[in-house]
Formats: sequence, structure tokens, C-alpha cells
Amino acid sequence: MVETLYADEQGLWLLDQRQLPHLVEYRCCRTAVEVATAIRDMVVRGAPAIGVAAAFALALEARECGLPVAGLRAHLEDTACMLAATRPTAVNLFWALQRMRGVWEGEAQGGDLRQRLWREAEAMKAEDIAANRSIGRHGAALLSAGSRVLTICNAGSLATCGYGTALGVVRWAWAEGRLQRVYACETRPVLQGARLTVWELQQDGIPVTLITDGAAGYLMQRGMVDAVVVGADRVAANGDTANKIGTYGLA
Amino acid sequence: MVETLYADEQGLWLLDQRQLPHLVEYRCCRTAVEVATAIRDMVVRGAPAIGVAAAFALALEARECGLPVAGLRAHLEDTACMLAATRPTAVNLFWALQRMRGVWEGEAQGGDLRQRLWREAEAMKAEDIAANRSIGRHGAALLSAGSRVLTICNAGSLATCGYGTALGVVRWAWAEGRLQRVYACETRPVLQGARLTVWELQQDGIPVTLITDGAAGYLMQRGMVDAVVVGADRVAANGDTANKIGTYGLA
Repeated sequence: MVETLYADEQGLWLLDQRQLPHLVEYRCCRTAVEVATAIRDMVVRGAPAIGVAAAFALALEARECGLPVAGLRAHLEDTACMLAATRPTAVNLFWALQRMRGVWEGEAQGGDLRQRLWREAEAMKAEDIAANRSIGRHGAALLSAGSRVLTICNAGSLATCGYGTALGVVRWAWAEGRLQRVYACETRPVLQGARLTVWELQQDGIPVTLITDGAAGYLMQRGMVDAVVVGADRVAANGDTANKIGTYGLA
Repeated sequence: MVETLYADEQGLWLLDQRQLPHLVEYRCCRTAVEVATAIRDMVVRGAPAIGVAAAFALALEARECGLPVAGLRAHLEDTACMLAATRPTAVNLFWALQRMRGVWEGEAQGGDLRQRLWREAEAMKAEDIAANRSIGRHGAALLSAGSRVLTICNAGSLATCGYGTALGVVRWAWAEGRLQRVYACETRPVLQGARLTVWELQQDGIPVTLITDGAAGYLMQRGMVDAVVVGADRVAANGDTANKIGTYGLA
């Protein structure tokens, strides 16, 4: 399974999703500003991936900026403001910034604070993958054997730190031998379905057919779709969800 | 209003729709084979336009081939077979060939037959425009004042010999001051909505907004669409219709 992002002593490495499927290339962000630019330019996209990228941006900034602790806290607050402005639709971003704020507002000092921020970002990445696997397990339980699943946009490995949310359900069902095929809406205007979902499922050998967004209704009418599984940028307390344009029509 | 096709002493001139909206260029077909290629390559498209183009292809062939009447009739039959194979979805094509066959199977001889075939093609073009205006008048009567109309693909001037079917309704309503705006689905995969419908409505100064195919459901949910008006490649005796992928979802 492809890695969407990882961090090391050089910085935060992001798979440049604008170049997929033609080119698999990682870009290294060495500062929070570089991460913010990468989010804004859609080098990295997908609500969970953006959240963790922002967490690493703060950890990276703490590690590299060389400020004493007092100045560091104010600097992290400014950095969080800048990161919050990059992508207003992805609620995970604000959640991630808040969680990191919990660390720098705590007791830790100096090198210890820097280490804790880094460990927090790493923990968020690991938790995201674990949550996705859990989503996959629960979601797959709702699918009958031989299911044909339709999806829109990319709520896969590439939208998360790995495994995926909607495509986590697909992966789990595939591993259990209960998935027949995925239909991926191409997802205009930016074609995340055609460029990302088809590519990442092909990497895992999962059968996938690309369709135009307009073809979804026809497939349903022909009885070719057993379930529609999509991501959600946000889920409201009343159960309303927000997701890529086209999701309403599928629902 | 733009002219989709016209015939003169040189041949049949077709507006090359593959190059719209970037370039307005007419191609001259001098033989039926050239018309067949133009239909197959989508230089001309839209069921009514294809039918009349095929009629002119036969009239042109009769005018230019130089065969005596006996050989001419057999040659027209062969030519009709070749034309029938170009575009199996457009029923107007078979209707047009059949109507032209009625002429060459009749009593007319020599130059008279050649002239009658030409006049028949010209009559079909004129009748198509008249029929479109009639469709427009009847269709517009169903729209209330201030209507916002959604359409998919291109069932306009460019799909016919002029005025359009679905867009004929739009044009009539606009002329009567009863149309507020057209929403044009971009119509993947070939983008006839984005490339042709938006362009031809802009030529006539009719307000049009381009949307992705996936956005249609959302617009309806927001109460932004009063009517959906689309073309039909075929209408069956029971009222079933066949049209571009995506039409089912809109219905």
C-alpha cells in the first residue's frame, strides 16, 4: 500500500497527488509554510491526511525554528493560525491543530516539548491508520458477498495516512473475499476518482471500473451497484454529511 | 444563429464541431464517403443533423458520380448501406436514408432524379428547422415565467439544422422573456455541454452557467432548477427515450 506522507530528520515527505497517476514523486516540506503551501496547492488532500500533515507541520516548526520555549509557544500559535486558513472544508485540520495546541499549552519544556509535539504527530498518524482499519472492518460487515461498490472522489489511502475510509471498507471486504468490483466515479472537476482512486486500487490489485459521474444512475438502474460508500469531509450532530459535489445525487 | 451545415455547388459544408469552441471552421465534403467519415469522426453530431447530412451525402453522390440511372440506383443503395453503418444510435439517420430511397425508387430519371434528390435533402433541412421551432413553441408553453432550465449534452442548433430541439425550447422561452437562465451539464466524457451548448447559447446572448454533471442533483436540492429539458436520440412507442449518459439520473 502506497504511503501518503511520512516524516524523518529531513522534514515531512508528501506524495505529490497532483502528478498521479503519471508520476509517483514525494516532495519534502522543511517548514510549516511549505506544508501550508502544499495543502493549499493540493499536493496533499483528503481531510485525514491534511490533519496529520498540519500536525507534522507544527512538530517540524518546533524542531527547526530554534526559538526558546516562551517564543516557541507564541510562534506555534501563529503557525496554527496560518495552517487553519489553508483548507476551510476539512474539519480534521482544526481538530489536529487543537490537539497539538494541547501539547504546547501543557507543562513540557524545551527539548521535551519538541519531542512531545513530534510524538503527538506520529501518534495521530498511527491512530488514523488504526481508525481507518476499524472503519473498514465495521463497514465491510454491512456488505453482502459479491458486492459491487460505487464510490466518488478519493477516500482512500491517499486521503488518509493509510488504508482509507471509504476505500478502507473496500479493502476489508476485498481481503475477506466479499467484494466483486468497485465502480469509481471520475469526479469532475478535479478527477480525484479517475486519477487517484483507480490508481490506488490498481496498486492493490482490486478490480475497479472507471465511470463518468453521469453514468452512476444508469448503473444503479441496471442493478449493477449493491452499495455506495463515500468519504465525508464533515459529519454533523444530526447525521448530515458534507462531501464532494455529486454525492447528493448518488444518495 | 450559427449554421451547422449547408450545401452548395462545391459540396456539403459541415461546421467542425470537434474544434469548438476554440475554432469555427467549416469542412467541405465532396463525396458520400467524406460525409460518412465526418459522421463517424463526430465532425457533425446530433441525430437531426446527422440525418440531413446523410441525405445530402446521397444527393451529392448522385450529382457527382456521373453514372447512368440504372447504375446510379444501385450505387445509391450501396451508399445508403455505408452511411447507415456510421452511427447506429441516431434513428434520424435511418429515417433520412429511407426517405431518400423513396425518391430514387420512384419514377424520376436522369437529371430530374438528381435534382429531386437534391431538393429532397434541402426540404428535409427546411423541415427540420420548422419542426424545431414548433418543438420550441410547444415546449416553451410548459415553462413558467422566470424559469431556470437545466440541460445535458447539446440538443441545440449544432445538433440540428438550426434552432435546436431542447435548446429550441430554451430559445423560444428566451424570446418570450420567460427564461431566466440555463444550467448546462458539461456532459462527460466528450463535453458536448461545455464545448457546444455553452458556446452556442453565448452566441445568442442567452444566460448560461456551466456545471459539472455531478452538481445537477445539488442544484435541484437547492431549488435552483425549474425544468430539465433534454434531447432524445430515440423515442419508443411506449414513451421510453434514449439519450446521452446522465439523462437517467436527471430524470
